[in-house]
Amino acid sequence: MSQKIKIGIVGYGNLGKGVELSINQNEDMELIAIFTRRDPDSLNNPLMRNIKDIADYKDKIDVMILCGGSATDLPEQTPEIAKMFNTVDSFDTHANIPIHYDNVDKVGKEKGTLNLISSGWDPGLFSMQRILGESILPVGNTYTFWGEGVSQGHSDAIRRIDGVLDGKQYTVPIEKALEKVRSGKNPEFTTREKHLRVCYVVAKEGEDLERIENEIKTMPNYFDEYDTEVNFITKEELENNHNGMPHGGYVLRTGQSETGSKQRIEFVLELESNPEFTASVLVAYARAVKKMHSNGEDGCITVFDVPLGMLSPKSPSELRKEIL
Amino acid sequence: MSQKIKIGIVGYGNLGKGVELSINQNEDMELIAIFTRRDPDSLNNPLMRNIKDIADYKDKIDVMILCGGSATDLPEQTPEIAKMFNTVDSFDTHANIPIHYDNVDKVGKEKGTLNLISSGWDPGLFSMQRILGESILPVGNTYTFWGEGVSQGHSDAIRRIDGVLDGKQYTVPIEKALEKVRSGKNPEFTTREKHLRVCYVVAKEGEDLERIENEIKTMPNYFDEYDTEVNFITKEELENNHNGMPHGGYVLRTGQSETGSKQRIEFVLELESNPEFTASVLVAYARAVKKMHSNGEDGCITVFDVPLGMLSPKSPSELRKEIL
Repeated sequence: MSQKIKIGIVGYGNLGKGVELSINQNEDMELIAIFTRRDPDSLNNPLMRNIKDIADYKDKIDVMILCGGSATDLPEQTPEIAKMFNTVDSFDTHANIPIHYDNVDKVGKEKGTLNLISSGWDPGLFSMQRILGESILPVGNTYTFWGEGVSQGHSDAIRRIDGVLDGKQYTVPIEKALEKVRSGKNPEFTTREKHLRVCYVVAKEGEDLERIENEIKTMPNYFDEYDTEVNFITKEELENNHNGMPHGGYVLRTGQSETGSKQRIEFVLELESNPEFTASVLVAYARAVKKMHSNGEDGCITVFDVPLGMLSPKSPSELRKEIL
Repeated sequence: MSQKIKIGIVGYGNLGKGVELSINQNEDMELIAIFTRRDPDSLNNPLMRNIKDIADYKDKIDVMILCGGSATDLPEQTPEIAKMFNTVDSFDTHANIPIHYDNVDKVGKEKGTLNLISSGWDPGLFSMQRILGESILPVGNTYTFWGEGVSQGHSDAIRRIDGVLDGKQYTVPIEKALEKVRSGKNPEFTTREKHLRVCYVVAKEGEDLERIENEIKTMPNYFDEYDTEVNFITKEELENNHNGMPHGGYVLRTGQSETGSKQRIEFVLELESNPEFTASVLVAYARAVKKMHSNGEDGCITVFDVPLGMLSPKSPSELRKEIL
């Protein structure tokens, strides 16, 4: 085998840890260093480095996988790190993707680095299935359902309520709606008809549970447009039964041919660990970035710009022979 | 909108007719001519031309969609027509893909045409899902199930049996096997455990039905390794209840992260018309071939080499804004 692809990680939360694990499953890759804003010595990992020293690794890392958050980390980090390294990020604030793209593309073209933004599964794999569906069945409808899985944002929102010690929120696709889509009826749904929100809440002792339940159910943007189920449980129950980060979902495209034949394309993810899966997508795309950069590409790209063969460690002729 | 993409069709069977219909659903495309070996005047279609006149269209067609069979037509036609035109074919004899690729690549590079082979849904969309699955979840298993749908090859095999007037064969994935895969048990299956074969047969009057049933069930390569169900019906029943060409199937990848989290990626097709769907895939890939040829690419490519954004009539920035 040729030389291994040298990977760096920036940020060591759930996603960064997932990338570290995923690299172990890819024999053509090698983790060189993990960069953090925290004190590296506090983290008990020989690969941990302070982010201030990142420039020292300029020629030692092929692709830097950026594992910060989309709200404040990535809008600054990706263009900054793209000055020195090829990068992959999971920027997922849909409305700001065009601006993020332009910022990163400018730096990448100036400095000759290749940078893939908004990878993961949504945006990412789900986006790819949406484009595939509407390109192949131009007369039809696309539906995206999320879950069943834990929504970090909604869980955080519950925890901010006065009197709440801890909580988790599951987004649950409504089976009846899914079945209606699969039947080819091209239904239109209200927000409430597609997803249910199920909350498990640990309240402080003596709190008015009715008030908490009401505050959750009427919370604007998060819960008010949904049917929401609130279950009060103990701290132990939460820790024992809700400690995972499962997620997943469905992308469906239902279309009709000119003769009226109904056609359906469906893509399903069922994930026991959302951050570990997102990490494994970023790692596969890091391989593609390395290959495409070696082919002379630079600037900013997304999953729409990457030929699927680039994701694989196998050669084009192996892929044609074994997988096509 | 810029100029429409000019499409030609070679071969006017079920697939060619499907391509003709599919082009109507794509506003950025225009059907210029359909080439056939039959007498064009017999076909009552103003676009019909004799294949001998194909060279007259050299600068009038952007992409030629080749709708012949993989056994004898495409191995000759694709390299021949690639001398003058960009092409898309649905070559599906898996074992011969490497040879077909080399033949077409050589011509394409010499003549400056771009040619995408082995498009459709298997090979094609299913192959793409297989590569996606094994690249993202390198520790795991890939499963492909076909059906429920009509297998042309198996239906033909039934019809060749002495005493059979007509027949159709449905390939049916075994639900219990699918469920076992979804459970993440990484099962191994015998051929018999994955698919059931269900036959509807019209026998000549007075034939020994037991003999026919036995000949079907024991037919090597086609039926002997499967559980096969044979139903004798009337000509009218066959025409009324089995006149469609439905098909579909499943590609599943089940994997485990380093911590043991089970992850599943599943892709499903449910098609009322197999040839119309295959046609719509070829048409979307014809768009990609036109764009990539305009970018200066030539030779032979497969679905593994095409960035998904190329399939869409939308611009890269529209795609990032609307679909990512």
